[in-house]
Amino acid sequence: MIELKVKDVDISSGGAMIALLNFHDAKKFDLHHGDRIGIIYGNKHVQAIIDIAESETAAPEGSIGLFEEVLAELGIRNGYKVKIAIEPKPVSVHYIKEKLNGLKLSYEKIKSIISDVVEGKLSDIELTYFVSSAAIRGLDYKETVSLTRAIIETGETLSLRGKVIADKHCTGGVAGNRTTMIVVPIITAFGMKMPKTSSRAITSPAGTADTMEVLAPVSLKKSRMERIVKKTGGCIVWGGAVNLAPADDKLIKVRSPMRIDAESQLLSSILAKKKSVGATHVLIDIPIGGETKIPDKKEGNRIGKEFIKIGKGLGMKIEYILSNGNEPIGNGIGPALEAKDVLKVLQRSDTMPFDLEKKSVMLAGRIFEMAGKCKRGRGEKTAREILDSGRAMKKMREIIKEQGGNPDVKSSDIKVGKVIYDYTAKKSGIVRDVKNNVVSNTARFAGAPVDKEAGIYLYVHEGDRVKKGDKLITIHANSEEKLKFAKNFLIKSEGVEVR
Amino acid sequence: MIELKVKDVDISSGGAMIALLNFHDAKKFDLHHGDRIGIIYGNKHVQAIIDIAESETAAPEGSIGLFEEVLAELGIRNGYKVKIAIEPKPVSVHYIKEKLNGLKLSYEKIKSIISDVVEGKLSDIELTYFVSSAAIRGLDYKETVSLTRAIIETGETLSLRGKVIADKHCTGGVAGNRTTMIVVPIITAFGMKMPKTSSRAITSPAGTADTMEVLAPVSLKKSRMERIVKKTGGCIVWGGAVNLAPADDKLIKVRSPMRIDAESQLLSSILAKKKSVGATHVLIDIPIGGETKIPDKKEGNRIGKEFIKIGKGLGMKIEYILSNGNEPIGNGIGPALEAKDVLKVLQRSDTMPFDLEKKSVMLAGRIFEMAGKCKRGRGEKTAREILDSGRAMKKMREIIKEQGGNPDVKSSDIKVGKVIYDYTAKKSGIVRDVKNNVVSNTARFAGAPVDKEAGIYLYVHEGDRVKKGDKLITIHANSEEKLKFAKNFLIKSEGVEVR
Repeated sequence: MIELKVKDVDISSGGAMIALLNFHDAKKFDLHHGDRIGIIYGNKHVQAIIDIAESETAAPEGSIGLFEEVLAELGIRNGYKVKIAIEPKPVSVHYIKEKLNGLKLSYEKIKSIISDVVEGKLSDIELTYFVSSAAIRGLDYKETVSLTRAIIETGETLSLRGKVIADKHCTGGVAGNRTTMIVVPIITAFGMKMPKTSSRAITSPAGTADTMEVLAPVSLKKSRMERIVKKTGGCIVWGGAVNLAPADDKLIKVRSPMRIDAESQLLSSILAKKKSVGATHVLIDIPIGGETKIPDKKEGNRIGKEFIKIGKGLGMKIEYILSNGNEPIGNGIGPALEAKDVLKVLQRSDTMPFDLEKKSVMLAGRIFEMAGKCKRGRGEKTAREILDSGRAMKKMREIIKEQGGNPDVKSSDIKVGKVIYDYTAKKSGIVRDVKNNVVSNTARFAGAPVDKEAGIYLYVHEGDRVKKGDKLITIHANSEEKLKFAKNFLIKSEGVEVR
Repeated sequence: MIELKVKDVDISSGGAMIALLNFHDAKKFDLHHGDRIGIIYGNKHVQAIIDIAESETAAPEGSIGLFEEVLAELGIRNGYKVKIAIEPKPVSVHYIKEKLNGLKLSYEKIKSIISDVVEGKLSDIELTYFVSSAAIRGLDYKETVSLTRAIIETGETLSLRGKVIADKHCTGGVAGNRTTMIVVPIITAFGMKMPKTSSRAITSPAGTADTMEVLAPVSLKKSRMERIVKKTGGCIVWGGAVNLAPADDKLIKVRSPMRIDAESQLLSSILAKKKSVGATHVLIDIPIGGETKIPDKKEGNRIGKEFIKIGKGLGMKIEYILSNGNEPIGNGIGPALEAKDVLKVLQRSDTMPFDLEKKSVMLAGRIFEMAGKCKRGRGEKTAREILDSGRAMKKMREIIKEQGGNPDVKSSDIKVGKVIYDYTAKKSGIVRDVKNNVVSNTARFAGAPVDKEAGIYLYVHEGDRVKKGDKLITIHANSEEKLKFAKNFLIKSEGVEVR
């Protein structure tokens, strides 16, 4: 057996177990890029993927450069001696090749691939072959359910009691639209459980996790999340910290550089997260039109039905609604500005965004109905009563407190960017279009979501009558430079069309 | 503009320009895995691909970890300050997405992808999407010619004078079969040019480059190769060192972990190498049956015609022959044992392997004919005359000398492994099968190609009559351990079938 000296290369791969060999050694041992070796220290063993180092510094002859994941797994450091054995590639590489060649994969084969992904046994290149083959060849219903099950089973799951655990998801593309932070308190105030994990913004100016973070910490561990839900019935946390479906994060890492939006992969990604928190009833909000990915009702219904079908295969009841995706929902765009909107609705403020209230009530009502808590057609009334009574606000304060925020926070307490610009109507008329992507990008240029106080405030919605000089949008930033960038973009792109 | 301190991470990617950012910094600057940044030092600029470092050691906050390729391009070291600008992804990423979506790519788009590959502008993940999309969607005739042209144009080419430059290629799968080292001296002894680049073994016990290396150095730079060909008319060097088609090496790096054998990609890889040396007339040897990839004549003719078609698109005259791929050609398997065979043929030794001689003469003759140097049907006679006259041996000695080897070498000078085992016939009868893959693997287990002296010597061919106890194979190794491994495998697998 070959013995080599460990060199800590001070880099983590973010997934795969990687070992660097000097190219002289690689030649001597007849090893190639992507080959597998077993690294043995005492009675511990890790299988690693070979990368060939061309430079002497990364891995001098007689040494093996190990990435952080391998060092951690073996519990070793710089200078330790390890033994090396040549090993075959995981059998999952063969299954990926089968998918590439157009074969259908059984549950067992998909599980084998996903387990190896989670254990760092596949290289980025191999994983990319899986994602691209699945995108091009497609995954059928059975494969999609298998993939989702495999993602769930290779992660942890929340253990909550209760027959009904609610969840919701929005297919996206609408600025603002922070309904989750209103729906969760309504649902949980009624006594139902809703352990919500949300995402941060990737290309938008704010995700629900970013907005909730204005009010309370959202990077909570799974055990803390469980305690909070047991105590309050709900939570609104960042899914990335809970790490319920670790395979999904690794698949996303490979999908995102090419913006792979293969439907079966997106569905499995979304539904794995729902099933991992133990959801039994999931409402899907599908905004139609505008700059969303779903152009019309026909396509919305098709996707909605796919959700229902896959959900059924996973033992979840799913319903969907088609909503208007043509303009932003709410007035604020950007974490702090959206948090203000949410609190205004919960506080029953006169200046609250009524479109956000209306949509949230509708979603909460539908969840009551689908869970059999209200008769069909009566859900909205119940939801509105909970909101009007102040019980939703009270519940939100409990959740904020348990997550570690200030439970007494009011909308007026929340700070927003003080370097501002008012964008006004150049003529009188009717607002014909508020462009989702223009207001989103303006908020991003102002600094959102990294600068939580940055964003825009929207004074008008489609159909409103405005006079020349009326304020349409205020941009909030924290630096003149960012303001200028956002302002120039907004003026050039004419975010609000008045005719 | 952001300013960061350079940290040399002491690793080369082997291609892509990679920069590591601390995850706090990545969040602060709103940068994600796979995003592009411009790194500016003085008036130099490099576009790099972001990787997010989870550990503080790889890239502490405020610093940027740079791979060797980036440091070399900017001419900077540890501790230097560089400026960072966010940049869009190369447009070639978009073209790769188009291929993934099933569109045909124009020459311009393929050229853009391949240029970015060579310049390290694409990540392994992005390149894998290209390779897998091209494998699954397929490349049509036009795309294959475009890919081949792009590979040629992004590398250097040999500049040789002469209207006729010969080359040959074998589609592989046959043990031994070291015809190149006999064909090149015959062709060049006739006054034609044949600048041959060959590969090393990847999964076989010897490539032509490994075998030639027993006689002379084969890792020569392009300029040296040119000088040798100008002087002697030919050479036999390792293609990997000449680096004529750098894009191809990078594509192979991504194809090999999944053993992608998409025909259009293999054809472009092979023909780019031929065109890069300036080849005008290329003979393709297509062994049929046995453990080759080509099961029958029908498939052989189909592939042969593809070669001709693509070759025409690149301005090369191509012909092909179908040969017997059912058993090894020659007696030795392993670099030194094969080199001995080659020299025996050139020396006109009584103990030479006649099958290797016959096939080499046939190939050389066909090249004379296709280049119009002999009438059809007369090539073999000319080739045999050159061999018999000793002119081929003389030419080979010239080439060996120019490449830096000992021109006076004789077959008997070549050392082979001294730890041996004789595998004998268990009964009398006729040899029905000599299994290519069993003899190849036995030679590999004995230590070939890393140990050049290791391998096997084959005493019989199909149809030979043997008596019980006759030697069938001798295994040559340099250690008892390897010999035992090879011997056990050979006995278990019954490499020679006698009936």
